[in-house]
Amino acid sequence: MIARKMIKYVEGSSVIRAMFEEGKRLAAKYGDLNVYDFSLGNPSTPPPASVRQAMSDIINEVNPLKLHGYMNNSGHEDVRMAVAASLNKKFGTSFSYKNIIMTVGAAGGLNVVLKSIIDPGDEVIAFAPYFGEYNNYVANFDGSMVIVPPCIPSFQPDTRVFEEKITKLTKAVIINTPNNPTGVVYSEDTIKQIAQILNKKQEEYGTQIYLVSDEPYRELVYDGKEVPYITKYYKNTIVSYSYSKSLSLPGERIGYLVIPDEADDYESLTCAANVANRILGFVNAPSIMQLTVARCLEETTDITIYDTNRKLLYNKLKSLGFGCTEPEGAFYLWVKTPCENDMEFVNKAKEFHLLLVPGSSFMCNGYVRIAYCVDTDMIKRSFAAFEKLAAYYNL
Amino acid sequence: MIARKMIKYVEGSSVIRAMFEEGKRLAAKYGDLNVYDFSLGNPSTPPPASVRQAMSDIINEVNPLKLHGYMNNSGHEDVRMAVAASLNKKFGTSFSYKNIIMTVGAAGGLNVVLKSIIDPGDEVIAFAPYFGEYNNYVANFDGSMVIVPPCIPSFQPDTRVFEEKITKLTKAVIINTPNNPTGVVYSEDTIKQIAQILNKKQEEYGTQIYLVSDEPYRELVYDGKEVPYITKYYKNTIVSYSYSKSLSLPGERIGYLVIPDEADDYESLTCAANVANRILGFVNAPSIMQLTVARCLEETTDITIYDTNRKLLYNKLKSLGFGCTEPEGAFYLWVKTPCENDMEFVNKAKEFHLLLVPGSSFMCNGYVRIAYCVDTDMIKRSFAAFEKLAAYYNL
Repeated sequence: MIARKMIKYVEGSSVIRAMFEEGKRLAAKYGDLNVYDFSLGNPSTPPPASVRQAMSDIINEVNPLKLHGYMNNSGHEDVRMAVAASLNKKFGTSFSYKNIIMTVGAAGGLNVVLKSIIDPGDEVIAFAPYFGEYNNYVANFDGSMVIVPPCIPSFQPDTRVFEEKITKLTKAVIINTPNNPTGVVYSEDTIKQIAQILNKKQEEYGTQIYLVSDEPYRELVYDGKEVPYITKYYKNTIVSYSYSKSLSLPGERIGYLVIPDEADDYESLTCAANVANRILGFVNAPSIMQLTVARCLEETTDITIYDTNRKLLYNKLKSLGFGCTEPEGAFYLWVKTPCENDMEFVNKAKEFHLLLVPGSSFMCNGYVRIAYCVDTDMIKRSFAAFEKLAAYYNL
Repeated sequence: MIARKMIKYVEGSSVIRAMFEEGKRLAAKYGDLNVYDFSLGNPSTPPPASVRQAMSDIINEVNPLKLHGYMNNSGHEDVRMAVAASLNKKFGTSFSYKNIIMTVGAAGGLNVVLKSIIDPGDEVIAFAPYFGEYNNYVANFDGSMVIVPPCIPSFQPDTRVFEEKITKLTKAVIINTPNNPTGVVYSEDTIKQIAQILNKKQEEYGTQIYLVSDEPYRELVYDGKEVPYITKYYKNTIVSYSYSKSLSLPGERIGYLVIPDEADDYESLTCAANVANRILGFVNAPSIMQLTVARCLEETTDITIYDTNRKLLYNKLKSLGFGCTEPEGAFYLWVKTPCENDMEFVNKAKEFHLLLVPGSSFMCNGYVRIAYCVDTDMIKRSFAAFEKLAAYYNL
């Protein structure tokens, strides 16, 4: 017998597997080139050449006992120093290695943060639409998820509702900008409002509320868009970063946390995060990947490819009459479904061999997410299918 | 404010840090060569040359999008096939890739297993002395730890007490052979007795009790000692393996779980483990390390160095009159303290610049663990200090 908590996941898995199998069935029947899979957030551009070079150099240069051995659970000190210096240069912050904890990706980092701060029953606020895994991470520690709806059509958080939802039990707020699934970048004004509300509510309740900024898409922005660095706006900010998208390394599980000096209970918090990294079973972020990213801190994957895809898809779907949110970052297009039920739309799209993800997976029914981290050619090939879909809905 | 559960860890951390600082203080005062640190289980022999070669080949041969991309949460299918084939060849088992889940080391694997099966209040039995992290892993899922004492002086589990401690709430039993901290290999007779008792108790209570075999030291055995493969003795066995010691890759976090077809609820269990790997934040084992170990499955680090250290230290301490358990595997020597309180002995040893770990860290007071994964020269240099320690206790 598996754990009771896991039963719903196992049942849910079979649904996902069924969808995946359906995709494979379509591809087998109609050919790979005639099925348009926009469902996965898996980078389609390779890591920059510097990643391979760094790995090759490291293997040849670094003493294998140091390279592959245990280190502090928070990571190699020299790597943490390099990450801090790079952030300071980019954002004018003043972090030291003590503010940086290397993690097994942002998923690992978020679990480390939540383990460190959440008591059972504590509330964690997230702004819909959001990455559905947050629900699972918060449930890992028996926290309670509180959902704040978006302003429409901007898809900035609704700060008025946000303020109302904060209670004495609110322990953390998760933000994700550039956002999965909308592609929206939260404006500086939004960040300032969130910070102001949090400061006010902390004082009102005599509590500490940590603002957890999940930033795997920070580097993926277009048209020179600025993404405010959150620690500069609110002292109880914890940043969870990942190199999965910026360096196209999702399978290698490498990221970091930033816990600034000015965060309340900084000493206990960094110590708790160090312990949590260990006892959750991560122990430390993979050593060779720590050393690799430290040598590629100023690099990113070729973002112009995503930008090309973004423009192609956005312009086409807009011209077809779909209601699209213009993506400013990440690699997702967020589209209003012309029918009320997004699953109905997803199923209809599948008839035209278009694989999309329903907005309800992101706690926001009535929309779909189209991941454009795919071959540009596939996007072009998919246009006829989108045309048929638009025609079906009389757009 | 950090989570209430984390407070004791943060307090405990400061004790460990104080010990670590004390070691550094001693080294600074007396010189590195005059402080004998036997406290860490960090491999002192490098990975075999094949590891560097494999990594280098992989970086140059494998498409970087495949090499560094997401894959199934359970790992690359070809890697899992290779691991299964290697186990089948070594142990006459008949695993397929579906029985193998690649994990972020054995620490990750154990957390995945416990997340998959433990409901709050479920009991997990471990045989003292054992790796203290098991307590934390079980606490992660609100399980309750039940400790069975060893037979002395063999340090095989006391199967009579074991049988008494099994209740309706017993959900898992963790074994670790070759054992940290004793170096003992559980005999085939012990394994058979454990299996027989578990079968009987499962039937008596109508429950399922999983035997979780934590095997980071499987390859580290001496004098041709055989380590029985546990799945062959008890069908509800789950193996948690790590390459940390066998390939000296502890910082890279790579291992796997084996869940055999014949385990009860095999389908739900493997599905739950796959989901747990994802939602605990591991997502998957680091990709390049999966591919690397798949090319080094028949390799190990140079174990003769540990064997040399083992003999040197065991013979010396025995000749000095210390009560030593002869290590058959792993890289630890388990020594009875000549005074009742092991912390008193550890502190006295420190006066002679010997850094040891008290048995109470392994739920077994009255002993110390001496890790001999160190420079052979350091062992020789430490003999004078051990002589003084023996003289102090009039051995």
